[in-house]
Amino acid sequence: MRTIRASIIGFGAVGQGVAEVLLQKDEYLRNIGLDIKVVAIADSKGAATDPNGVDLSKVLTRKRTEGIVGSEKLTGLEVITDTDHELVIETTPTDIETGGVGLPNMLAAFEHGRDVVTSNKGPLALKYRQLSEIAKENGSIFKFEATVGGAMPIINLTRDVLAGNDIISIEGILNGTCNYILTRMMEEQAPYEQMLAESQELGIAETDPTYDVEGIDAACKLVILANSIFNMDVTYKDVDVKGITKITPESLMLAQDDGYVIKQIGEVKNDLIRVGPRLVPVGHPLAVGGTLNVASVQTDLAGAVTITGHGAGSIETASAIISDIISIYR
Amino acid sequence: MRTIRASIIGFGAVGQGVAEVLLQKDEYLRNIGLDIKVVAIADSKGAATDPNGVDLSKVLTRKRTEGIVGSEKLTGLEVITDTDHELVIETTPTDIETGGVGLPNMLAAFEHGRDVVTSNKGPLALKYRQLSEIAKENGSIFKFEATVGGAMPIINLTRDVLAGNDIISIEGILNGTCNYILTRMMEEQAPYEQMLAESQELGIAETDPTYDVEGIDAACKLVILANSIFNMDVTYKDVDVKGITKITPESLMLAQDDGYVIKQIGEVKNDLIRVGPRLVPVGHPLAVGGTLNVASVQTDLAGAVTITGHGAGSIETASAIISDIISIYR
Repeated sequence: MRTIRASIIGFGAVGQGVAEVLLQKDEYLRNIGLDIKVVAIADSKGAATDPNGVDLSKVLTRKRTEGIVGSEKLTGLEVITDTDHELVIETTPTDIETGGVGLPNMLAAFEHGRDVVTSNKGPLALKYRQLSEIAKENGSIFKFEATVGGAMPIINLTRDVLAGNDIISIEGILNGTCNYILTRMMEEQAPYEQMLAESQELGIAETDPTYDVEGIDAACKLVILANSIFNMDVTYKDVDVKGITKITPESLMLAQDDGYVIKQIGEVKNDLIRVGPRLVPVGHPLAVGGTLNVASVQTDLAGAVTITGHGAGSIETASAIISDIISIYR
Repeated sequence: MRTIRASIIGFGAVGQGVAEVLLQKDEYLRNIGLDIKVVAIADSKGAATDPNGVDLSKVLTRKRTEGIVGSEKLTGLEVITDTDHELVIETTPTDIETGGVGLPNMLAAFEHGRDVVTSNKGPLALKYRQLSEIAKENGSIFKFEATVGGAMPIINLTRDVLAGNDIISIEGILNGTCNYILTRMMEEQAPYEQMLAESQELGIAETDPTYDVEGIDAACKLVILANSIFNMDVTYKDVDVKGITKITPESLMLAQDDGYVIKQIGEVKNDLIRVGPRLVPVGHPLAVGGTLNVASVQTDLAGAVTITGHGAGSIETASAIISDIISIYR
């Protein structure tokens, strides 16, 4: 049995999902020889620490009833710096303007030789090169499947399962909100504003939907793919971005008459990185509906391989984090 | 640099594809620390061996011009038994009635402590349990991504990338010939016989298409998934199989009017293993056309994850073999 001491930094939906999944999968993890012991949990209000392992059930209950994880007055950064542990699970909220607290958290983790598994896009969309270099210098492992498409495992598919292939391009639907709105506009022959309102009512779109519908969220994910798989050094500001707000139901119907759907597609290949509406033939692997995310990898040997999955959800995102953790320590 | 001595047993389209890819990817493999040295190649007519490494280009040329790999009178089984090497790349033709030469080849490889990477469905569709047990007893690694769906990496996706998830079911299109015929029947509103003839002309269907169109090929792949992922102990004779020969263009049109396509779907879950035509909604990840293969994995955490790829082709299948080899030795 290998014991891995871990911290969970950020305890919103994803951090709580990780705690739930660790509880649920404790026996499975022990069966494959892993004891993931959470020695600290921190959110923006405080922390709970225990070198023998925090009681995850108790912290989950406390967070949900009292709104706090614990009474210790420690920041996430202090936990990362001062607590003896191997793995930082970084699930603080994404801030794509500054990187938010996630950026100093990850840098500090690597400087202390800790591994990082994260769902936080912000630091990677802004400073991927710096983060991966500091991780390498300190012998740390850096995994971030959850940052791109939640439970759609495009990064590990490309890096591990398709090993031996040259990756020529990746294209796909990297934002479930856009996919939902466009799918519903076609189904209902209804205008953008109406289906945006529906998706806001359902909690699929946020009150301020700008990042999603203007393509910025997809651009951030594309940048993470560009930097980590194509070895580029770009930020989301380098992406040519068009949103979906100008699409009309008439254009969707015209496309449908010719056997096409309009999808919000992100695309990265040699010297090109862009997000915008594109025609996709019905029956093509990218032509999936609803809130699904999908990515198609063009390779030299295997041809095109396409992966589809749920791009959001706390347990789905936690699933990607757990798979990353297992891949590091198994 | 780690040197792995390998044999290629069977030198048809897939075996030759493996040799081509090893030549093409030599530098890449060395860059990740692997020297895959092919010390023997055997087909049904003879063998070429060299403890310092067979010249793959020369053997490829000899096979294509003279129809033989070499003048040494050795069978594949003798090569496996008598040549000092770590890895058997087993690419002899599939025989689902007896397992063909692949079955004794794999058993002998494991008995001599060698690892096996294979594209040969036959032995796995008949004797998976026995093979995996003998591999385990001898400390050998057994990888067979190429047996199910060529370059569609469903096995490694499920076992590695989705680690931590319970696998509830797998369903998908596991035969590209059936998918092609059904797709074309819908596009042309043409009867089965006509589109079968077209696919035979194009080399997509074989002269005797029985195994494909009656669902037997898909059943064999499903059995490999059932045994290796669901830990069942079944053969293809345990699968409830229906073919596509009775499907009419009228039924495809009726389905289309309601927003569905008819696809030949294989499905395995707790106590159920079957292949047959099923309605799939347009826009669903399984509703892909042409010769594509697709498989959807239902999991407890990640929800449904779907992978699409080319199910056949010598280089595509060789790609799966190379990825398996890299995953063993990297």
